[in-house]
Amino acid sequence: MHYGADYNPEQWPEEVWPEDVARMREAGVTMVSLGIFSWSRLQPREGEFDFAWLDRVIDLLHDGGIAVDLATATASPPPWATAAYPEMLPQDEDGATYWPGSRQQFAPSSPVYRRLAGELVTAIAERYADHPGVVMWHVNNEYGCHLNADYSDAARDAFRRWLADRYPDIQALNDAWGTNFWSQRYQSFDEVFPPRKAPYSRNPGQELDFRRFTSDMLLECYLMERDILLAAGATQPITTNFMGAFKPANYAEWAEHMDVISDDAYPDPNDPESFRAAAFQRDLVRSVKPEVPWILMEQSTNALNWRPTNAPKAPGQMAALSAQAIGRGADGILFFQWRQSRAGAEKFHSAMLPHAGTDTRTWREVIALGADLAGLPELPSGEAGARDARVALVFDWENWWAVEASDHPQNALDYLAVIQRWYRALHRRHVQVDVVPASRVGDGYDVAIAPLLYLVREADAAALTSFVEAGGHLLAGPFTDVVDEFDRFRDGGFATQLGPLCGIRIEDFGALVPVDAPAGTPGERQAPFRGERGEVGATAETIAGTGTLLAEEVRLVAEDARVEASFTDGRRAGDPALTVRAVGAGSARYLATIPDEAGVQAVVDRLLATTGVEPVVAGLPAHVEAARRGRLLTVINHGGPAVTIEIDGVDAVSGNRMAEVRLEAYDWAMVLSD
Amino acid sequence: MHYGADYNPEQWPEEVWPEDVARMREAGVTMVSLGIFSWSRLQPREGEFDFAWLDRVIDLLHDGGIAVDLATATASPPPWATAAYPEMLPQDEDGATYWPGSRQQFAPSSPVYRRLAGELVTAIAERYADHPGVVMWHVNNEYGCHLNADYSDAARDAFRRWLADRYPDIQALNDAWGTNFWSQRYQSFDEVFPPRKAPYSRNPGQELDFRRFTSDMLLECYLMERDILLAAGATQPITTNFMGAFKPANYAEWAEHMDVISDDAYPDPNDPESFRAAAFQRDLVRSVKPEVPWILMEQSTNALNWRPTNAPKAPGQMAALSAQAIGRGADGILFFQWRQSRAGAEKFHSAMLPHAGTDTRTWREVIALGADLAGLPELPSGEAGARDARVALVFDWENWWAVEASDHPQNALDYLAVIQRWYRALHRRHVQVDVVPASRVGDGYDVAIAPLLYLVREADAAALTSFVEAGGHLLAGPFTDVVDEFDRFRDGGFATQLGPLCGIRIEDFGALVPVDAPAGTPGERQAPFRGERGEVGATAETIAGTGTLLAEEVRLVAEDARVEASFTDGRRAGDPALTVRAVGAGSARYLATIPDEAGVQAVVDRLLATTGVEPVVAGLPAHVEAARRGRLLTVINHGGPAVTIEIDGVDAVSGNRMAEVRLEAYDWAMVLSD
Amino acid sequence: MHYGADYNPEQWPEEVWPEDVARMREAGVTMVSLGIFSWSRLQPREGEFDFAWLDRVIDLLHDGGIAVDLATATASPPPWATAAYPEMLPQDEDGATYWPGSRQQFAPSSPVYRRLAGELVTAIAERYADHPGVVMWHVNNEYGCHLNADYSDAARDAFRRWLADRYPDIQALNDAWGTNFWSQRYQSFDEVFPPRKAPYSRNPGQELDFRRFTSDMLLECYLMERDILLAAGATQPITTNFMGAFKPANYAEWAEHMDVISDDAYPDPNDPESFRAAAFQRDLVRSVKPEVPWILMEQSTNALNWRPTNAPKAPGQMAALSAQAIGRGADGILFFQWRQSRAGAEKFHSAMLPHAGTDTRTWREVIALGADLAGLPELPSGEAGARDARVALVFDWENWWAVEASDHPQNALDYLAVIQRWYRALHRRHVQVDVVPASRVGDGYDVAIAPLLYLVREADAAALTSFVEAGGHLLAGPFTDVVDEFDRFRDGGFATQLGPLCGIRIEDFGALVPVDAPAGTPGERQAPFRGERGEVGATAETIAGTGTLLAEEVRLVAEDARVEASFTDGRRAGDPALTVRAVGAGSARYLATIPDEAGVQAVVDRLLATTGVEPVVAGLPAHVEAARRGRLLTVINHGGPAVTIEIDGVDAVSGNRMAEVRLEAYDWAMVLSD
Repeated sequence: MHYGADYNPEQWPEEVWPEDVARMREAGVTMVSLGIFSWSRLQPREGEFDFAWLDRVIDLLHDGGIAVDLATATASPPPWATAAYPEMLPQDEDGATYWPGSRQQFAPSSPVYRRLAGELVTAIAERYADHPGVVMWHVNNEYGCHLNADYSDAARDAFRRWLADRYPDIQALNDAWGTNFWSQRYQSFDEVFPPRKAPYSRNPGQELDFRRFTSDMLLECYLMERDILLAAGATQPITTNFMGAFKPANYAEWAEHMDVISDDAYPDPNDPESFRAAAFQRDLVRSVKPEVPWILMEQSTNALNWRPTNAPKAPGQMAALSAQAIGRGADGILFFQWRQSRAGAEKFHSAMLPHAGTDTRTWREVIALGADLAGLPELPSGEAGARDARVALVFDWENWWAVEASDHPQNALDYLAVIQRWYRALHRRHVQVDVVPASRVGDGYDVAIAPLLYLVREADAAALTSFVEAGGHLLAGPFTDVVDEFDRFRDGGFATQLGPLCGIRIEDFGALVPVDAPAGTPGERQAPFRGERGEVGATAETIAGTGTLLAEEVRLVAEDARVEASFTDGRRAGDPALTVRAVGAGSARYLATIPDEAGVQAVVDRLLATTGVEPVVAGLPAHVEAARRGRLLTVINHGGPAVTIEIDGVDAVSGNRMAEVRLEAYDWAMVLSD
Repeated sequence: MHYGADYNPEQWPEEVWPEDVARMREAGVTMVSLGIFSWSRLQPREGEFDFAWLDRVIDLLHDGGIAVDLATATASPPPWATAAYPEMLPQDEDGATYWPGSRQQFAPSSPVYRRLAGELVTAIAERYADHPGVVMWHVNNEYGCHLNADYSDAARDAFRRWLADRYPDIQALNDAWGTNFWSQRYQSFDEVFPPRKAPYSRNPGQELDFRRFTSDMLLECYLMERDILLAAGATQPITTNFMGAFKPANYAEWAEHMDVISDDAYPDPNDPESFRAAAFQRDLVRSVKPEVPWILMEQSTNALNWRPTNAPKAPGQMAALSAQAIGRGADGILFFQWRQSRAGAEKFHSAMLPHAGTDTRTWREVIALGADLAGLPELPSGEAGARDARVALVFDWENWWAVEASDHPQNALDYLAVIQRWYRALHRRHVQVDVVPASRVGDGYDVAIAPLLYLVREADAAALTSFVEAGGHLLAGPFTDVVDEFDRFRDGGFATQLGPLCGIRIEDFGALVPVDAPAGTPGERQAPFRGERGEVGATAETIAGTGTLLAEEVRLVAEDARVEASFTDGRRAGDPALTVRAVGAGSARYLATIPDEAGVQAVVDRLLATTGVEPVVAGLPAHVEAARRGRLLTVINHGGPAVTIEIDGVDAVSGNRMAEVRLEAYDWAMVLSD
Repeated sequence: MHYGADYNPEQWPEEVWPEDVARMREAGVTMVSLGIFSWSRLQPREGEFDFAWLDRVIDLLHDGGIAVDLATATASPPPWATAAYPEMLPQDEDGATYWPGSRQQFAPSSPVYRRLAGELVTAIAERYADHPGVVMWHVNNEYGCHLNADYSDAARDAFRRWLADRYPDIQALNDAWGTNFWSQRYQSFDEVFPPRKAPYSRNPGQELDFRRFTSDMLLECYLMERDILLAAGATQPITTNFMGAFKPANYAEWAEHMDVISDDAYPDPNDPESFRAAAFQRDLVRSVKPEVPWILMEQSTNALNWRPTNAPKAPGQMAALSAQAIGRGADGILFFQWRQSRAGAEKFHSAMLPHAGTDTRTWREVIALGADLAGLPELPSGEAGARDARVALVFDWENWWAVEASDHPQNALDYLAVIQRWYRALHRRHVQVDVVPASRVGDGYDVAIAPLLYLVREADAAALTSFVEAGGHLLAGPFTDVVDEFDRFRDGGFATQLGPLCGIRIEDFGALVPVDAPAGTPGERQAPFRGERGEVGATAETIAGTGTLLAEEVRLVAEDARVEASFTDGRRAGDPALTVRAVGAGSARYLATIPDEAGVQAVVDRLLATTGVEPVVAGLPAHVEAARRGRLLTVINHGGPAVTIEIDGVDAVSGNRMAEVRLEAYDWAMVLSD
């Protein structure tokens, strides 16, 4: 179990460094991420490197027993680089340049940036690959965090190259993008531009491919650095820090190339429900590559600097969220950063060692957590997480991109918000969930929920169909199975892939005005629905909720399809809201709307009741979380009334036998079962 | 009566085309608009044309009895054009370029664009001018729709040329624009720029001329294409599709150059009052050139794609809005588009033939309407519309531009919204209205309403004065008669042209805070007014309403001017809100504020009562529309409770004699009187 | 006492000029500001000047007894200049150019602009320095008004020069800006850019220096023109018109270079409390240089043109606000402008002579005020204002800049709004206040309030400490004493400079969600606080209010520090909200939050009660203002119910003896005590 932080010694006089190491030891720190923003110190000018100070820092840490996760330092090019090579600066879709003075001012596809970054990484790798203090490699930092896309001429050239690699010829691109629409037919890849500012709606195929390209360009940067490290003989695990459900980077694809998954997470203490979003993020990053460990690479000890209002964490909240990460698979708890900066844009960001000193709540909590973590035994890891969950929640980056494109019946869809609403309903019932793409629903799950699977590849359709035919229970829709991988309708209408499985067809999407539209906006906003006890499975509960955003016109087309709930008011009153079709031992449901929180909970409850999925711990209130990690059970009170929970096992921190645990607000416990 | 749609066969394999023609015949289609976005298919590269496929489509349609409205295909230049000639791309006022990837990416004043468009139109015209299947020419498409203005260097050069044509010399421009203000005096036309991004308020004369220039540049494109068609021997009518009250293009001026007026209209099904805005649009496009027919060139069968929420139309609503267009003069009902696209930005836009197929409500409604239209006899047309209306509502594009310029006493004026509020009050009373410029009030009307005539040309003032002196009844104001055609005050104060006619003068405009300003915004928001039975005319109704936005300080200066309603509260309490002066058999009223909906209705009711204007049909509720087109009477229930109306005549669709008609929601009837 | 306006005769035919002079005499005008926007008339092209018309205007005015405040005419370069030298145009942070067509389209640091402006000023100065009609110089106009910052290449070059002047070498800059953070370390000044658009948060030291640079560039323009005037032998006072609390220009520094302070003020008549903001502005401009007179250089007679809603002033309000200015030290009342324009962006701006003519309320009020002012005797001036106030309200431009930078615990702080809330509480109690930087609290004040002194220079800390030790009463905080002059934390935590004086330390800033955040935004918004009768001083009143935005975690560290009020709810319930420490005869209070209006009033009332500060006049309601200017007492009813006030003295306008005065709404009186 790693414990530590980003460490930026270059911001302090060298005489502070030994004090840092001493304080780290006091806090129980075991590893620090070093040098993430050191480029301008490591390479004062092109062709000239200065590693002496870094040698001293690494040796000092190593001598102090602190392991180093060494950064490649390429996240923020130095001023000399952009002054000499302005063509490496990125541009927004209006053509405005992003200038230096902040960080991440590089076009990921820029050949100059890649050359300079490569030269730096080569020098670092050759110097430190064999250093015994270096135990991990931290490539770059939060790829794409601020520059969600680059539209510069470097991006233009790279996009043309990427397209030429992807499509056999320009006619294949024309076909994929449907360029006969609006006279967009290309004669050559050299006529294509990134989707820069345009007079009106842009081509959806172009937009989707540009999203793919953007994710790929960032990944190319990673792979380039990784290959340099390997070529220099590095044998340590290599990673770059993810940011959970981060739209621009398709981590589900990236994960393949990571030795360790690392993740940065900053739940907002102002939001009493942010712990559930945090749980979703933990489950997502664990699910992208369950066979390797994951590390919480960055969180904060207390307040941030970058939100409009940066409230402090409640007493105990930092430890509770750390326990959550561990309970959901993390093998390390690290912070940004070790010592609070005294200058620069992040000086108000809290740190392990606060600017206000050691006579502070923050410091006391830091050393207490360090002590607790030091008491933990080896925890279950790797495949364990995947095996714990019987429910798969389908999450797919390309759907995120495609659903939130423009010119849809409903243009207020927030993909992540919809997925998280379903996650919350499961989390409130203390059900263990994996967050996976559709292609993985066959990996041993009993239930699969695909709340919004607009884009369905043929392989996805096959995987979902096989899943149901093998006895799985699928819930899909709405706005699902609308387009192919190029964002084109398939011949034969909508729901061509999953409609037969569900026994339904779709005539219209029935957009509703968002419930939070300004007062006075005309139009229907709500589609209430209701269903009595279901015919599939056994539960006495009715299903009732309010549909929003979409109220699709769904028709049953299979004899054995049944209506489980119907719309009760508005345009679609009397029509199906939720349908179900039994398929052998499995079942396929289709939901024609996006229910409100209560509606999603009702549908989830029906699904759990009819499929027999059990909670991790039964009978807990919603503010108490329970997570299973193999034989480790973690329970956390996220700030509500105290609870007493009967658990039989061994306290993982103290090693004491226990039969029950009482959790005051922000208390947590980890219990190993026998 | 044309029935049909835009047809984009290039989006489909050639084997689909015969099926299209067969389905068109099934639906009663008589004409399609062809090739609007075909440039990249018709001209794959500069100097090379491919008309073979278009030959086949036109022949197939012609053989199937479907007439062709052939497009000039210049609305969206192909990628090769902008790749080769980036100088033809338009720019916004910040200098950002509009790139390809959407449509309409051309600077209307660009010499290169005009040359390329001209070459294409020449080729099309020479090939098809004599084709018997081609019955109309569709020039470009929705000129200016997305690019409301272009500020590129091409526009800069053209603006200088346009100004040099308009003004005898640079000193005349200096005088018109008042350039001694803020040191803006020019020595040469070559010093003038479009009103690009500037540090602060821009010159209003420059802004107004740039609006005129922008409209003229688009019109120049049209005229260039028209002249090529004529030069090639084309004899069919030529048109370009308008978009109703579209601010950038002064259709009142453009109409002179159209053989047929065609219009695109997309009322929002979410808005239960959008049928009234649609009625306004029908009356406007009929009024811009009453002596020629007009065609509804584009509407939708069902949901759109480009609004935030694209709700479906209610059952029957599409036909009801089609009937409205015919009742208000249309001689054709066409849709965008024939077959729903399967790719591209508009694939969710409904069509005559839906992607969900023919077992759909949309398709059933399409064929039912086609059958009804096929049953209609020849309908009254041309001058008929103009003769039906006794009320002229004054609408003027240059006033729209000038009123919504900045630095006014009240900067929240929405010109179109104000005009439409007056239209709605007349529509609710089932009064037939023409929507005309001030210069045309003498064309046989009894009542003229000029709700907001800020800019008054000398000829306008003369026309309005003659109108009243000839017995007409004028209602004008507020913020009326403030400036001349260059947006300059005239010597002698305000209301110098119409003040004497109305017997008033204006001391102050009395801006009020908009009623929808954020809560807590300080300042007066409302100016309630009230008047008892008027002295001119005879009605027992009081006038009462709430003034908004402006509460002008009006003084009576003529002995025979009288106050018809006074402000009852606020800054102007006790002062005149509505004045009237009898002028022979006519009268001139001045209104000192912008009443709310009820206030406008009260003023309109007083005006109708004192002038004896009758409704088309008496006693109808507000959700039922009645329109007269010569001897054709159209009544429509726009979605409210059923009504039974006594009408004596012949049902225009069935030919049956009738004495009354019952209209359920969205039912409509057309009745020919004897 | 000057009375007059901006005069722009070039907008009118020469035959109007004599009428202007006659009307000026009728109105009592004594001085006009001439030629502010005359550049394009004075210099029709480079190298060619035309002064003949200006000669005639000045002579005409001089012959009519109207003095001239002659402008240098450099505020708006003529079109020929920017056409010839586009490199003088400024750019925004995205690189978009500000084009001509408005005014102020020059980069202040542009060498070309400075050369051209210098040539013009030289010509004007040489021609008119000796003219007996010219009594003052009006340099440029409202420097920086529209272009709050320039990011052009001219600015880039000048910024590098300015930095090289400020810092001994690039390493000093690196140290000041903390550039080891995010790899921002510079090797040369030539690598530095203005803080243009960047991917993320910019360096706060760079931002703060760029603010300083921007203010300095504008001041350099002023100084260049001033030096030319002096070199030409001008002996008249030289000024440029300020705009009160104008963020981009540090007037507290500029004032040193002004012979006269002149100020433009436009309180919004829609806001019934705007008279208090106006009073603040008067006190601020008087305080920046109390030893010289100040002039109200611009106000409006009635409505403006540049607000969203430009309401008219109430009858009498213009005179009441003029009296306020005089009561708070003004020695001149001038307007923008003399004669209302008939064209251009400001034609709806009211003037002394309205476009509606002389039979208007505006004109009548103008001549009435002129007559009243003509009756006034010589009034106390110069140092008098400073000596009248016992309370110093600390206002500091660099704090304004630094507080509103990004990445703070609370990013919704509005520096000016906070300062003005404290000012209002004092104004409602009719207490005379000076608005000064921290360095001047020792200039004879008894009480100093520093509501938000985030950035504390060492000299400021010393001045505040000396002030308290000498018996002064200080109230400071919150978010005070956080950084040094480079926006860096000091070693040793927060409140390192004033914490010992107040006897406290700060552990956390405790950001609260703004009370006006959208509904549904989670998080604590309010921190109510309460304190009983204080231990220092004597008052029976409790202190109660609601804290907003910040609820700091404050700990007492001195034995003699006491809690005067505590938080009563929320995160900090029970912790100190207001602390006080007696220091000899003085005291130091620290306030841990930003109270709402009532809370600030309660704290101010406690402060006044415990320090014995008396109102100018006792017992007045809040809508009546009382101001002291030496032996002149001014009382004004700002639009509320009538009051009768007992004052013994001589009416300054009429010279009559008086014992009491009755003030109806907008009445005012000036009374000279014996």
